[in-house]
Amino acid sequence: MGLKSLGEEGIIALFADRGDRIPPELVKGIGYDCAVIVPDPRSKVLLTTDVMIEGVHFKPETTPPHALGRKLLAVNVSDLAAMGASPRFALLTLGLPPDTDPEFVSQLALGLKEACREYGVTLVGGDTVRSPHGVVASLVVWGESTAARLPYRSAAAVGDGIFVTGTLGDSGAGCELLNMAGSQVPQSLYDKLADAHLNIRPRLDVGRHLVRQGLINAMIDLSDGLARDLNRVAEASRVGAEIWTERIPLSQELRELGRAWGRDPLDWALYGGEDYELLFTAPCPAAMDGNHDLSAHFGVQVYLVGTITAQSGVFGVDQSGKRPLPYQGFSHFGE
Amino acid sequence: MGLKSLGEEGIIALFADRGDRIPPELVKGIGYDCAVIVPDPRSKVLLTTDVMIEGVHFKPETTPPHALGRKLLAVNVSDLAAMGASPRFALLTLGLPPDTDPEFVSQLALGLKEACREYGVTLVGGDTVRSPHGVVASLVVWGESTAARLPYRSAAAVGDGIFVTGTLGDSGAGCELLNMAGSQVPQSLYDKLADAHLNIRPRLDVGRHLVRQGLINAMIDLSDGLARDLNRVAEASRVGAEIWTERIPLSQELRELGRAWGRDPLDWALYGGEDYELLFTAPCPAAMDGNHDLSAHFGVQVYLVGTITAQSGVFGVDQSGKRPLPYQGFSHFGE
Repeated sequence: MGLKSLGEEGIIALFADRGDRIPPELVKGIGYDCAVIVPDPRSKVLLTTDVMIEGVHFKPETTPPHALGRKLLAVNVSDLAAMGASPRFALLTLGLPPDTDPEFVSQLALGLKEACREYGVTLVGGDTVRSPHGVVASLVVWGESTAARLPYRSAAAVGDGIFVTGTLGDSGAGCELLNMAGSQVPQSLYDKLADAHLNIRPRLDVGRHLVRQGLINAMIDLSDGLARDLNRVAEASRVGAEIWTERIPLSQELRELGRAWGRDPLDWALYGGEDYELLFTAPCPAAMDGNHDLSAHFGVQVYLVGTITAQSGVFGVDQSGKRPLPYQGFSHFGE
Repeated sequence: MGLKSLGEEGIIALFADRGDRIPPELVKGIGYDCAVIVPDPRSKVLLTTDVMIEGVHFKPETTPPHALGRKLLAVNVSDLAAMGASPRFALLTLGLPPDTDPEFVSQLALGLKEACREYGVTLVGGDTVRSPHGVVASLVVWGESTAARLPYRSAAAVGDGIFVTGTLGDSGAGCELLNMAGSQVPQSLYDKLADAHLNIRPRLDVGRHLVRQGLINAMIDLSDGLARDLNRVAEASRVGAEIWTERIPLSQELRELGRAWGRDPLDWALYGGEDYELLFTAPCPAAMDGNHDLSAHFGVQVYLVGTITAQSGVFGVDQSGKRPLPYQGFSHFGE
């Protein structure tokens, strides 16, 4: 069967969402040589990009194409969430093997379009090509922010409290479960953790709220594990950090899996990756404490888990003492 | 050897051009979660993207990595040239097999950075990941234009003259030559045609000049062969076109190769692809004729090769009559 019947223009048509409202800033979108945009003169433009490659970022056996389409946008939106920005436009580069099932492409398009509507994003162009081995999908997302000060990862200050949203480690554990067909764990536990991996929910509203409030310094989204991402913040800000590891928020399901497998659930939180929760630093932990309406408004808890230090290095601290949390976690080239 | 020693951050460092002037509109570039840009309030922003996949768009045996880096930017700049816009910023997505020679990556980066300086582009971010099979390189380029009217492919009008720059077909023939090791053709002919394929020269200055002059209607860059690209203009503009095939500009080298191989050189011009010359339509062919300073200023000839017609369809006309030039040329899925 394959893609010959659909063709390049047929594939593009699947991704074009003709029914949607065209934002006034968009002069030309899909089907033109270039997307043409008249940017809002009050806003900064933020560009971010993430690629998903078959066999590296996903396996077709464990990632339904609809979820893949949603996730491709969601991981980019998460980068913008960490800047408190609003996603607006996207460009898609899609490489497909000629024998790809058209239904796969159709479901991928549906998932991406669904997520576009959810996050207020208009797909404005891209490039659709043949790939000799496996699916390659790359998205560039254009976000906007009117904030005077953006929460760069380099903006953490000594004495800041370190906060995270949600619970950490579920996605990493879910990824492991998805890769073990017929793993002997209760279905509800499997479902919860696999869902955390497949259906990520970028903290867009929380990120924007935190930036608008002006109470935070640095922010980053947790894509490669707390240890690696916090090291990035510490390095960029030329500070150190202490994490009170017992305060890292873990779900019941993750603790349960840790017990069942005889593993420390903290390892998934520190090194698992793909949580797409926010980590931020704020100079007044007390002001954040008055912020428990975050959970009321956005349905997500915020946890104080550590502090920014003058001494360089990132350390985990618990009752038994203090140990380095090295720059470790997911890496592409095994470095 | 491979990329383990270099690592993701080492690869990124190869592409970051610290020595360059940072444009004032660029607030944050490489090394941040998002690129942050304050757009020029007088300009429209044009976004374009092209991907190059090993085994589809290039073969490492025939495309040196330095040329690949240059070409990756040049094909995107060509899209902007066809809008008369100025390239400014770029985002690079790079997928590399772990066993890639670091020297390959280094040469790719050098070629891309060289082309960036040449076209005035600043690399502002991207994504660097592992690829299981072959190199994948995707570039999004941000261009700007202050023109009130852009030369969309949909803007051709009945009676317009059809013009092309340069000579057509050299790149397609060069691609064939590169794929035939030890082909029996004179070296100078081989060099000229292979160079047309490897070292494309987007007509950036010509495109901007034509748009500033306000003498043209539609414009497109010839990436997939004259037949396919002109059909695109005709379709988008809801018009037809006649091409006087004997007036299509062909290089001496292409004619010579046609004679040597017993093939019609026109086939490369019509269906070969990757010429990256400009095709434009203009209401006053005579005004264009007074434009022979194009060759003086920009070192490229402009040729009148046909006319836009009310009758739909694209036709080739010569002394022997008129035949359809179908929507044909390079296609990714064999449609």
